[in-house]
Amino acid sequence: MRVAYEDLVHTLLRVVLAAGLPLERAHLCARLFADATLDGVASHGLNRFPRFIEMIRSGVVDVSARPELVEARGAIERWDGCRGPGNLNAYDSMARAIAIAHEQGVGFVALANTNHWMRGGSYGWQAADAGVIGICWTNTLPNLPPWGSSAPRLGNNPLVIAVPRAGGHVVLDMALSQFSVGALSGYQARGEALPVAGGYDAHGDLTRDPSEILASNRLLPIGYWKGSGLALVLDLIAATLAGGRATHQISSDPVQETGLSQIFLAIDPSMPRDTAFAARLADEVIENLHASPAVDTARVTFPGERTLETRRRNLVEGVPVDPEIWAVVQRL
Amino acid sequence: MRVAYEDLVHTLLRVVLAAGLPLERAHLCARLFADATLDGVASHGLNRFPRFIEMIRSGVVDVSARPELVEARGAIERWDGCRGPGNLNAYDSMARAIAIAHEQGVGFVALANTNHWMRGGSYGWQAADAGVIGICWTNTLPNLPPWGSSAPRLGNNPLVIAVPRAGGHVVLDMALSQFSVGALSGYQARGEALPVAGGYDAHGDLTRDPSEILASNRLLPIGYWKGSGLALVLDLIAATLAGGRATHQISSDPVQETGLSQIFLAIDPSMPRDTAFAARLADEVIENLHASPAVDTARVTFPGERTLETRRRNLVEGVPVDPEIWAVVQRL
Repeated sequence: MRVAYEDLVHTLLRVVLAAGLPLERAHLCARLFADATLDGVASHGLNRFPRFIEMIRSGVVDVSARPELVEARGAIERWDGCRGPGNLNAYDSMARAIAIAHEQGVGFVALANTNHWMRGGSYGWQAADAGVIGICWTNTLPNLPPWGSSAPRLGNNPLVIAVPRAGGHVVLDMALSQFSVGALSGYQARGEALPVAGGYDAHGDLTRDPSEILASNRLLPIGYWKGSGLALVLDLIAATLAGGRATHQISSDPVQETGLSQIFLAIDPSMPRDTAFAARLADEVIENLHASPAVDTARVTFPGERTLETRRRNLVEGVPVDPEIWAVVQRL
Repeated sequence: MRVAYEDLVHTLLRVVLAAGLPLERAHLCARLFADATLDGVASHGLNRFPRFIEMIRSGVVDVSARPELVEARGAIERWDGCRGPGNLNAYDSMARAIAIAHEQGVGFVALANTNHWMRGGSYGWQAADAGVIGICWTNTLPNLPPWGSSAPRLGNNPLVIAVPRAGGHVVLDMALSQFSVGALSGYQARGEALPVAGGYDAHGDLTRDPSEILASNRLLPIGYWKGSGLALVLDLIAATLAGGRATHQISSDPVQETGLSQIFLAIDPSMPRDTAFAARLADEVIENLHASPAVDTARVTFPGERTLETRRRNLVEGVPVDPEIWAVVQRL
């Protein structure tokens, strides 16, 4: 079923206000959940919302907390998220990175002690909308076996890279497992097989069955050993620079997943020379991509392109919601 | 066969001096080629050296060029590589990023108009040896089909991330294809199958045969659509920030591959508080990784760990070289 975007926002706003978020924070929080859903990422939008409220009620998420500056040096700052709502902490941190970048060309914020940021892509769109390149990542609870091991000791640490462009921002938003846990749950709920192998079954063989993978807890890193190495270094950088926790210190219980570490980097592309050059070149890169001969009947698209199409369509036709989850949220 | 490290350096130094590099630049250039080989990456060390000399002789690489500052703003600088030797330009750019990071916490250098940087990991080790986190990447000639296409319109744009650590730096150095072109050539030369599928055969099926992949020119991006998206955004950022060329503007002929764009980011982890905390935490992350239960008999290692072991062994036992290539280099 589909609901109007403004009805979605209205319902979410009512619930987060009732959960105790201050007015202005509540608006931003509801918008971030609604926009993820609008953009087709319900797994990290509406579908995650009941757990978010549960974590407020259990005291894991502190609705009144605001991030606090711990230390600053030139273009780099370290912040403490004080266990506040993860999406608000992430938004504030990217906003701060953008502000530093406007002054110094580059802005770098390391955030400790925060909660799940929900859809990471939100902070990429935020950066691109502000006209800057945005790069951010988070660590997660242990959910990814390092290459060569069967035990989930690494996080699948989503990485977001956004490049602003008048003709449509390019926004890459990817977990370092071949499929995010939310995506696996989505395939499972729809009774679909994965398009490619996404992890291992109980026998240690690669499989396209999402249920087998969620049962074995052996997700596959992108590029095998490469994604495993990338997950490790992103955790190392986030935890040590933020002065926070690394994945192995985070509870593997999803409703106790807290104390995360995140990085937000903004780069202002406007240099005295050649801003028009850069815009033209970016368009050329996208034109070249679009002109790539497609195999099968698929179009060749850039990261974020389908998101923009989904957003436009859902604003007109309504936002697709899972009826059961929507009923749950309406009763919250 | 194996040759002593100092004999390798001596031979390479003689050739680059004869090729016209100024004395101090010749030493650095020979060392970078020798160290890549010493570390077990001959594909981007000794085995690439004859082509490097060929590109000097053909005028593609200008031995007398030095990178020139184009513009600066706060923590970000843009440089022109002036088609100088790619490894020297990259080394100088990372050195400049490190110097900015020592002042401002973060240093960001975008380099245009350069040549192949050979082993990307070299600039990660360089940053880590200087005590800073280093992140760098390069675009390449078109050698990777975007997801959904059969034509190599993207580069496999290697990405390097290095984290300094007293107990052994963590250095990730990976092309965004499942195997670099150099690695595929290595498997082909040794008559070995790839450990996992690395690209497509002539029929459009995934294959572990390196010859089939080199023939079809259809390498597989890591994580399928994810590596494809990552390659696109890294090219976009490097080319637009550097004011340089994007992959689609670079010749697909390897001996004419020039005018590359690269990014060098350095982050100084030493903040007034908690430097000891960060070092302890990094060690804990590595201990947790090492304690992961291994499948089969493989050890679970961090990126760079085997490199350090290889380096130590080859310093004692001699550096493995391909006898034919070594003979060619000695005659250069």
